[in-house]
Amino acid sequence: MSVYTRVTEHDLRALLADYAIGELEDHQGISAGVTNTNYFVDTTLGRWVLTLFEQSDPVELPFFMQLMDHLAAHGVPGAHPVARNDGGFLSSVQGKPAALVYRLEGASTQMPSPEQCRALGGVVAEMHRGVGGFTARQANPRDLTWIDAAAVRLFEALPADDCRLLVEEIEFQRQATEKHFNDLPRAVIHADLFRDNVLFRGDRVAGVIDFYYACHECLLFDLAGICSDWAWRDGEFLAAHWQAFLAAYTRRRPLTEAEIAAWPAMLRAVALRFWVSRLIDAYFPMGGPDVKIHDPAPFKHLLLAYRDDPPGLTLP
Amino acid sequence: MSVYTRVTEHDLRALLADYAIGELEDHQGISAGVTNTNYFVDTTLGRWVLTLFEQSDPVELPFFMQLMDHLAAHGVPGAHPVARNDGGFLSSVQGKPAALVYRLEGASTQMPSPEQCRALGGVVAEMHRGVGGFTARQANPRDLTWIDAAAVRLFEALPADDCRLLVEEIEFQRQATEKHFNDLPRAVIHADLFRDNVLFRGDRVAGVIDFYYACHECLLFDLAGICSDWAWRDGEFLAAHWQAFLAAYTRRRPLTEAEIAAWPAMLRAVALRFWVSRLIDAYFPMGGPDVKIHDPAPFKHLLLAYRDDPPGLTLP
Repeated sequence: MSVYTRVTEHDLRALLADYAIGELEDHQGISAGVTNTNYFVDTTLGRWVLTLFEQSDPVELPFFMQLMDHLAAHGVPGAHPVARNDGGFLSSVQGKPAALVYRLEGASTQMPSPEQCRALGGVVAEMHRGVGGFTARQANPRDLTWIDAAAVRLFEALPADDCRLLVEEIEFQRQATEKHFNDLPRAVIHADLFRDNVLFRGDRVAGVIDFYYACHECLLFDLAGICSDWAWRDGEFLAAHWQAFLAAYTRRRPLTEAEIAAWPAMLRAVALRFWVSRLIDAYFPMGGPDVKIHDPAPFKHLLLAYRDDPPGLTLP
Repeated sequence: MSVYTRVTEHDLRALLADYAIGELEDHQGISAGVTNTNYFVDTTLGRWVLTLFEQSDPVELPFFMQLMDHLAAHGVPGAHPVARNDGGFLSSVQGKPAALVYRLEGASTQMPSPEQCRALGGVVAEMHRGVGGFTARQANPRDLTWIDAAAVRLFEALPADDCRLLVEEIEFQRQATEKHFNDLPRAVIHADLFRDNVLFRGDRVAGVIDFYYACHECLLFDLAGICSDWAWRDGEFLAAHWQAFLAAYTRRRPLTEAEIAAWPAMLRAVALRFWVSRLIDAYFPMGGPDVKIHDPAPFKHLLLAYRDDPPGLTLP
């Protein structure tokens, strides 16, 4: 959520004419995240976030809109697109596809408590139970094929050790896909459940945001992503945080034997995916006036840690 | 919103199995309002209100659910029904039709400020602009036909002066309908926009609730209802409150000549409607363990005040 495209007051007044949310009061760019341009937009009727989709395939956007709308309709706390007067969710601002979503009250935290991890477990379990039979499909845009192509671009930029690690891990994932992943339960997952993308009010989840990597994938992928971000601090694994998440999650969705067997490989899949995408952002930046680049190194360290001694998926 | 029907923890656990909003944490009956039974319901995923519909025609309920869902989808702040796992909005609790809606954060006020009236004007104008082309229809269940039938029941209970006033006003409304009301702009209106039914956070409208009298009616009816409740205190007309509402409202929806001409008659229509429905509730109560009866007298006084000296519909 960096500011790649400047949006003017004139743009916003023209946009708001297509909605029923009153008149413009204030707006401000948001400098966080990596993929889209985001603005806070305040109107006489409420507070909203405007997202300009900088990279998304316009064909894919209705899927995200429908998913967010569907989750909100079913009570799963999340950002929620506002319908236009004509009933659609997508507008055009500065020639880019754009959407207004409800601005959630709450804040993300870089230092979650075990209690917050427990609350997250309850929310993610409901999402994974296939909320209200949401059946639309979208493939994972960062699957092994994408990682493989990205690696080819990275080989000329990375030190030899890193290239070797990439090659090994891509081959490992190829085997793991065949051996494990094809048998796992799948549904629409968030696929980007970093601490940045969950807002809390106290110990409650106020909402999950940034669904723009959501796709039909192994449910276990989200768990490995959460483990990799929420249960590590300064290179230390936080067992109590992870156990709290897992206890709440498995209460609503018990894990299968196949998931438990696939877990160490899925941890490595997630570490590889985010290491590679961050390397691409760092070595081949998209540009923009106020773009934040995330350090790839922590995911390399996680990948190595997961090869040696992966944390468990079961409760003690 | 009184408690007519007791709901048990067992009822709620069974209900929540059909939703994706987590597990029961707490519940409590709400003693306010007049028509339905309402409970606060807290779950691991959020805070909700359960409404049991005590009087509504089950055929009409989907209209209210669709309207609330539609307004929320378009960003008009309002309570918002939660969809069940099967996609529907209606459940059954203790043999009554029931719905879970989002619990809004905010509070109603009995002493609104002019600034709050201004905020309300913006919200009501958006609702009246026919948000996103909501086209479903529902007739006004408290129209002149209903008032006429209610008056027949009341004649045996009321003093002679009140009976005479009723007869006069019903006849006046019959003529006003023909002379004025048939030409007025219509759409789906809330029709019960009392201070109880609007929640604020500071000067902002957090949400409009209790849409269970919503119907296809003259837009002017809502304005007369708001004037009658928000712009009077202890028998005094609050000109600044009314002007603040009107300024914000007409900015988004200018009034027609026909509406300005019909205004004094519409004020009397609204005062008559609520006087009669409160008389019915007072003389023929529905019963229930914790039912609040509103005093009919203020609406009789308003009716008399409107006959003498109705407040204006235009800005100075």
